[in-house]
Amino acid sequence: MNYNSFNTPVSLRQMKITDVFWKKEMELVRNEVIPYQWEALNDRVEGASPSFCMRNFKIAGKMNQEKAQKGDKYVEPQYSFRGFEALPEDPNHLEEKFYGFVFQDSDFSKWIEAVGYSLTQHPDPALEKIADEAIDIVCGAQQEDGYLDTYYIINGKDKIFSNLRDHHELYCFGHLTEGAVAYYEATGKDKLLEAAKRFANYIYNYFGEEEEKCKGYPGHEIAEMALVRLYEVTGNRKYLDLSSFFIEQRGTKPYYFDSENHPDQTRKEENHLKYSYHQAHLPVREQKEAVGHAVRAVYLYSGMADLARLNEDKSMYEACESLWEDMVEKKMYITGGIGSTHMGEAFSFAFDLPNDTAYAETCASIGLVFFARRMLEIKPKAKYADVMERALYNGVLSGMALDGKSFFYVNPLEVNPIACYKDERKHHVKPIRQKWFGCACCPPNLARLLSSIGSYAFTESEKTLFVHLYMGACLTKKIGNQDIEVTIQSKFPWEGHVAISVRAKDTDFELALRIPGWCNGYQISDLEQFEIRKEDGYLYLKKNWLEEEHIQISFQMEPVLVAARTEVRETVGKVALMRGPIVYCLEEVDNGKDLHLLSVEATKSITLIDKKIEHESVKAITAFGKRTLKTEENGLYQPFKEKQSKEVCLTYVPYYVWANRGENEMQVWTRVE
Amino acid sequence: MNYNSFNTPVSLRQMKITDVFWKKEMELVRNEVIPYQWEALNDRVEGASPSFCMRNFKIAGKMNQEKAQKGDKYVEPQYSFRGFEALPEDPNHLEEKFYGFVFQDSDFSKWIEAVGYSLTQHPDPALEKIADEAIDIVCGAQQEDGYLDTYYIINGKDKIFSNLRDHHELYCFGHLTEGAVAYYEATGKDKLLEAAKRFANYIYNYFGEEEEKCKGYPGHEIAEMALVRLYEVTGNRKYLDLSSFFIEQRGTKPYYFDSENHPDQTRKEENHLKYSYHQAHLPVREQKEAVGHAVRAVYLYSGMADLARLNEDKSMYEACESLWEDMVEKKMYITGGIGSTHMGEAFSFAFDLPNDTAYAETCASIGLVFFARRMLEIKPKAKYADVMERALYNGVLSGMALDGKSFFYVNPLEVNPIACYKDERKHHVKPIRQKWFGCACCPPNLARLLSSIGSYAFTESEKTLFVHLYMGACLTKKIGNQDIEVTIQSKFPWEGHVAISVRAKDTDFELALRIPGWCNGYQISDLEQFEIRKEDGYLYLKKNWLEEEHIQISFQMEPVLVAARTEVRETVGKVALMRGPIVYCLEEVDNGKDLHLLSVEATKSITLIDKKIEHESVKAITAFGKRTLKTEENGLYQPFKEKQSKEVCLTYVPYYVWANRGENEMQVWTRVE
Repeated sequence: MNYNSFNTPVSLRQMKITDVFWKKEMELVRNEVIPYQWEALNDRVEGASPSFCMRNFKIAGKMNQEKAQKGDKYVEPQYSFRGFEALPEDPNHLEEKFYGFVFQDSDFSKWIEAVGYSLTQHPDPALEKIADEAIDIVCGAQQEDGYLDTYYIINGKDKIFSNLRDHHELYCFGHLTEGAVAYYEATGKDKLLEAAKRFANYIYNYFGEEEEKCKGYPGHEIAEMALVRLYEVTGNRKYLDLSSFFIEQRGTKPYYFDSENHPDQTRKEENHLKYSYHQAHLPVREQKEAVGHAVRAVYLYSGMADLARLNEDKSMYEACESLWEDMVEKKMYITGGIGSTHMGEAFSFAFDLPNDTAYAETCASIGLVFFARRMLEIKPKAKYADVMERALYNGVLSGMALDGKSFFYVNPLEVNPIACYKDERKHHVKPIRQKWFGCACCPPNLARLLSSIGSYAFTESEKTLFVHLYMGACLTKKIGNQDIEVTIQSKFPWEGHVAISVRAKDTDFELALRIPGWCNGYQISDLEQFEIRKEDGYLYLKKNWLEEEHIQISFQMEPVLVAARTEVRETVGKVALMRGPIVYCLEEVDNGKDLHLLSVEATKSITLIDKKIEHESVKAITAFGKRTLKTEENGLYQPFKEKQSKEVCLTYVPYYVWANRGENEMQVWTRVE
Repeated sequence: MNYNSFNTPVSLRQMKITDVFWKKEMELVRNEVIPYQWEALNDRVEGASPSFCMRNFKIAGKMNQEKAQKGDKYVEPQYSFRGFEALPEDPNHLEEKFYGFVFQDSDFSKWIEAVGYSLTQHPDPALEKIADEAIDIVCGAQQEDGYLDTYYIINGKDKIFSNLRDHHELYCFGHLTEGAVAYYEATGKDKLLEAAKRFANYIYNYFGEEEEKCKGYPGHEIAEMALVRLYEVTGNRKYLDLSSFFIEQRGTKPYYFDSENHPDQTRKEENHLKYSYHQAHLPVREQKEAVGHAVRAVYLYSGMADLARLNEDKSMYEACESLWEDMVEKKMYITGGIGSTHMGEAFSFAFDLPNDTAYAETCASIGLVFFARRMLEIKPKAKYADVMERALYNGVLSGMALDGKSFFYVNPLEVNPIACYKDERKHHVKPIRQKWFGCACCPPNLARLLSSIGSYAFTESEKTLFVHLYMGACLTKKIGNQDIEVTIQSKFPWEGHVAISVRAKDTDFELALRIPGWCNGYQISDLEQFEIRKEDGYLYLKKNWLEEEHIQISFQMEPVLVAARTEVRETVGKVALMRGPIVYCLEEVDNGKDLHLLSVEATKSITLIDKKIEHESVKAITAFGKRTLKTEENGLYQPFKEKQSKEVCLTYVPYYVWANRGENEMQVWTRVE
């Protein structure tokens, strides 16, 4: 481990994203998702089932006030602990109690996190005022002792931390902390950060190695990485220690979750998902295979990578590397989708990557991006950035419609709409994006990722700026006492040209450029003027910088037919089409019904064309293909005749834009002639 | 409708099956299945969970005696109605109550039915004695009023017929009746038949069109066809009327099942399977598509076909025809498997025939055979017999191991064993046959079908003997007062030669021979001597019969590569191999691992070879094929290179013998070059 290579994200306040492609996504989040989400948090979206999120905080706050006023005379109300409190039959007569999922608090936290990031790129006093008021409401619910989870505040605090496996308290804490740090870093306002710290202190006093402390850990991971962020922003080592405790404790025997009394005892003891679903089947350093609920898994691995870096922990990094390799070499779709089965929203076994029943949750690809960026922070290897880029341009972006108004949880690689309605095995697959979800996980997760996208593109160490993704941006960086400036212009992902200007005179600034794995060749202007080092797919450039230097880069970006390893049964005899980081697919709207009857001719030419999908200008691709002629004879089964087909022109569009032109068939993998 | 063509099965007592192929299956049933099943019914199979079947009958009988002794002082015990009463923790301390599934009584009925058929072909006084004693026990449980279902006799008769949807009372009655008729026809003993009649009378008085009677119908069909058999053996028209009532009542509004109070209210109202699962979504004459639980469906359709024939009901026949066409032209595997989804063990939508997640329950193929035979009885069309034959030689027989000791419920067309263990979506698929099942449906159903196989091969009308399946047998038939004799010798399914001798001098006997749909040409000796008529795929032969006539037939039986309609997405670009009625498959044991990497060369020669699988002599087939070479590069996704493959010899074995040589991969559909 070369600790000198450690690097961390460039602060969003040190950059302005100017990229055409990503700026548009950020603006969608700012203009569509964040306002919509605020309405949703306040139960004001017509036709959508209420969130109850802000309502729960208000009720908890009101209970706090009553308690303060009545003192000893205050009697805690008694409610049930059912994990999900549904709307009563008459929605106009709500009781003063908790409604919604146990993790409903996190909806606010994800929103405030996205708001924070957005404010760094686009100051908006009106939005900031709404956010401040929301923070007041949330902080009003916090208990004197620091505890802050409305489900238990409202239902009775005697039960707190009694069901870590299922009840998401530590998950809500994690999101609260992520949101608080983001908002503090964006605005400098620390009210929510202070609340998160007080809750973190409470948790620190409750859990830990000391004999009297609870030995539990989160059922749904995220607190691990959130505590690291809290440590990094506060410098208080105990938050790092608590994260370490949660991570090291996980999967040790006797299994902590077995000591809990779970109201739902229907989960079968024999169920092999029982522990692995939570990545709690083995101590984390012994885990070599990515298993269980995919989102939880990558959240855990992200926390592990954080610890590996901060504790300079070689064996933890090796554990992360094993899990990484298992995941990206055996269990990842070409789109960067992970978690191929809807049973437990989980990883399936190695190379089991069915296209039509895929789960590939948007949040899981987002978590994969988290993990990848953290692996890059430890050691900048292009292989991590390649996967991060793959997920971002494909399996993540496909989660949101081009108008930012509807969303996919599940990102299949092949869809026949009729199957989504008529085949119960595919009920999780939707042929068209949905407005919003009762369980609001993917849309707000997209919002927080997209509005902080710059921190995935660029990281820095003392003297080096790492460009992981070629995203248009203006960045500043301190080298000693000097401010240097780097400006990047790019038309990624549609063109491979990048222009970089550097103002770093009289510094020993180093520019580290990723050479994408998909790129067969590249040119850099005046390369001979630099002192060059190439390592792990990065090109490190140094020189005596003049006042302003201009660098031109051109990455080859040809359409390429791609095959999966022969172990992947579902894609044998089939190919996908990629160009640069973009995975392409066929849609019915361009290619007619029955996409399964199409094949692509590998030896013939492939042409790039410009196409508008809604208002999105994309590069589409046309290729020679064949369409198997339909059966003419009667009879479900007939003697095979020499293949009958006709020549057709196949039109491929980027995977992330699919299902923006109505409900239709789609497929990524097509038979090859 | 040509009512003159109606025909009915030749009685098993009028035939001796001599066929090498089927006799062996019947002997397995007689020597293995029936004795094993008797042990199972009496909870004497080590390692298997107890059936409780005979025990339940005994307890019910004992309660009857106590009641008779105590008269008015008798107090009914109170037990629960949970649908399934599992073994208590200590199996040595059973209470005197009902244990097992609600339909446990039917285990006896299926057994006695198989015993009856078996006795016609192989008299066995010892077995008959056991059967008679079992009948005594069962009849001892019957109530004075005729009611006979131990679940309600033991748990409290006030609840009878209160949950027709789920509780299988009428299903148990149906099986009891089928068993009683079979045993009566085999032995002439009518004790069980009388019990069935008394129960039928009870049901007749309970259900019907009259205002005061219950308007319900069976949740799991079978009573419909059983009542027809009872009518045919007794001549009592009311049993036919009751069958008509059940069938016509089904699916009418308001839905009867909605009027029941079901303890399990978790079934969602929106669930589209709610009514169609039971084929109760529409009145049967309006049903055009095969839907819902596949076994229930074909049992219903069999009853409908019986009624169409006996009531000379044209529109009912048309409804049967619509359902038949929908099922066999859109929803049937090449093996004769039906019900392609495990969700509800049900039909999926048209052309949705996935190979690796198939359900294709053995019992559903058996039910398809029932339905096909009944359609043949109405109108002898070769298309019905083609499907019947396809199911029998493939999807039915695959249900039983070659030693008769283990069984498949689920008959997939593609298996990768690791997926059965590691992928929860395929947990219903087993890579190896199982010993016996808690829910003993398929093995005893196989036993009753195989031991009565002759009644599917041969039916008769007044002067005509129909040969639907070319099965070695000696048959007698009355023409007027005269006994004629027909002897058939065949080496089906391995050779297409059939020798038939007829002793029908001085009669106007007619022989009707099915020309199999798979047959491209045939020869019949001295065909010119006959008066010939060809209709619906049958060749009707008449002549002035001499004392003994010999007819030689030779059906062409070439290996043929078969394709499915282009609508079947899962088989596009793939072919299966058939020869005669036999569907072939590739197994790992012959072809190595990773069957998905194999392809077959359509233009090259295909060779028949002799092969022994266990003790079974079969015709195997070798063909030229290619094996895609394994990926050498690292990386899950790589630029596509021209296909790299090597020539291999593919060895195909009959589908029904798969999984008899240990756990291994199997596939029916292979990519074609």
